[in-house]
Amino acid sequence: MNTQKKTATKRLCIVGLGLIGGSLAAALKARGFSGEISAVVRRDEVGRRALELGIIDSYTLALAEGVVKADIIMLAVPMLSMRAQLQAMRDALPEKAVVTDAGSVKKSFIDDARAVFGTLERVVPGHPIAGSENSGIEASDAHLYNGKRVILTPLEETLEEATEAVQSLWQITGAEVEILDPDYHDRVLAATSHLPHVLAFSLVDTLATHQEAEEIFRYAAGGFKDFTRIASSDAVMWRDVSLTNRQALLESMDSFSAHLETLRKAIEQGDGETIEAIFKRARAARDAYTS
Amino acid sequence: MNTQKKTATKRLCIVGLGLIGGSLAAALKARGFSGEISAVVRRDEVGRRALELGIIDSYTLALAEGVVKADIIMLAVPMLSMRAQLQAMRDALPEKAVVTDAGSVKKSFIDDARAVFGTLERVVPGHPIAGSENSGIEASDAHLYNGKRVILTPLEETLEEATEAVQSLWQITGAEVEILDPDYHDRVLAATSHLPHVLAFSLVDTLATHQEAEEIFRYAAGGFKDFTRIASSDAVMWRDVSLTNRQALLESMDSFSAHLETLRKAIEQGDGETIEAIFKRARAARDAYTS
Repeated sequence: MNTQKKTATKRLCIVGLGLIGGSLAAALKARGFSGEISAVVRRDEVGRRALELGIIDSYTLALAEGVVKADIIMLAVPMLSMRAQLQAMRDALPEKAVVTDAGSVKKSFIDDARAVFGTLERVVPGHPIAGSENSGIEASDAHLYNGKRVILTPLEETLEEATEAVQSLWQITGAEVEILDPDYHDRVLAATSHLPHVLAFSLVDTLATHQEAEEIFRYAAGGFKDFTRIASSDAVMWRDVSLTNRQALLESMDSFSAHLETLRKAIEQGDGETIEAIFKRARAARDAYTS
Repeated sequence: MNTQKKTATKRLCIVGLGLIGGSLAAALKARGFSGEISAVVRRDEVGRRALELGIIDSYTLALAEGVVKADIIMLAVPMLSMRAQLQAMRDALPEKAVVTDAGSVKKSFIDDARAVFGTLERVVPGHPIAGSENSGIEASDAHLYNGKRVILTPLEETLEEATEAVQSLWQITGAEVEILDPDYHDRVLAATSHLPHVLAFSLVDTLATHQEAEEIFRYAAGGFKDFTRIASSDAVMWRDVSLTNRQALLESMDSFSAHLETLRKAIEQGDGETIEAIFKRARAARDAYTS
């Protein structure tokens, strides 16, 4: 009956106001979240800008100060910063506070949380499947999560009320929340997100280090721009994803390289039938599965 | 003074009304081309549809009939169909007719034209750097070439008036015409267009053949859709590009694979510094060169 009441968050503290944290704040403010939103930022100007934009109620540079009065703490920082943040907030956390995150790799965050807290009773690992090649507070977008999926990967020990609180929060943004196994999440995302990013970065780097790079880019068309858009993504965030989802990413890269080698051989041997079959299968799959 | 007059085309015959040929017809009609546009198509319904759309004046299924009264013949067919079309039109070509094409590989077309005509005096190899993942007459777009580059790769023997006639035609569409060396064109396009297409097809095929393909595509986000858009391109056209630009494409693929292997090693070894350097260089290059 009144689950909405039970799980309503009064005070949310967002750690990190980049694209992901800033867009969450913006979406909540735009869609009638009734609680308070505080933020923990590293640079004063980011906090001031967020206040100007009207997407937070207050900010601080001191993590402990930010979390001490919060019901939910949302970590929206690069994967390799998670553990230090969890350690730094541990002693200041209110007893019933729920900790969640928006990182792209779930196993890594779970390991961090277990190392710091010992248990994930009040920790709800999460990942909004939404983003953009833009980064920083200026890229904040109140519509970023609308209609997108947010994956939560609670463990057996995670309290249901904690998961529900995080779920309710994301639902306000218009996102569709799904529960997944963390390992499964990490493997699927390695294939659909981490691998494409790595390929795009690598392709642009291949061309950028070419001796005729400037000339080469002059003749790039629209397809190239779409294909490499994700290579304009934040380098530190993606470095951390690559390192923290290493195993699944390496497996995806190897699977890709094996497929590419098959295609390479067909091209080398002039085997048009195999080439056409691969291209047709890819086209059919893309047209069937994406829209 | 009156170069416009000298090079004005009275009668254009477009062979092939897919995205490229159809968009050229549409652009010319929309932008005040004063000549006649006829088309040679394989299927009657395509010709009828083009008449309905008002982008051509007439069509025929018989190549010889189409070219016999033309001043310029534009071949807009897959690369591996070029030679047969040139052979089939040879005896019907008016003495002063100019033949040009819109294929993605210039060396291959030059070889075809030389094999059929012996000389390229009246042959102007061309390539509009514009496209879309959509194909067919319904994808025709009068604005496709506006502000885009069209590369012409005339040889020493090519008559200046022939090149000028083709250049004038493309300029009507709003395109910016540039003259390049054909080998250089093929190497640059291998890197910026053919390689990305091959990678996109290969990535989607990698995921499509995964046992959990359907689930995997469910969790693909916007970045994946952008990255793989070009994998929805026409399979036969890209098969032909892969085969006719084989050498340059293989070199590009090998250069890419070597870069990817460097990145793979850095990820395997947990070398965050190298990973971040690659990602940052890629991001900077993309931001600097594309807009």
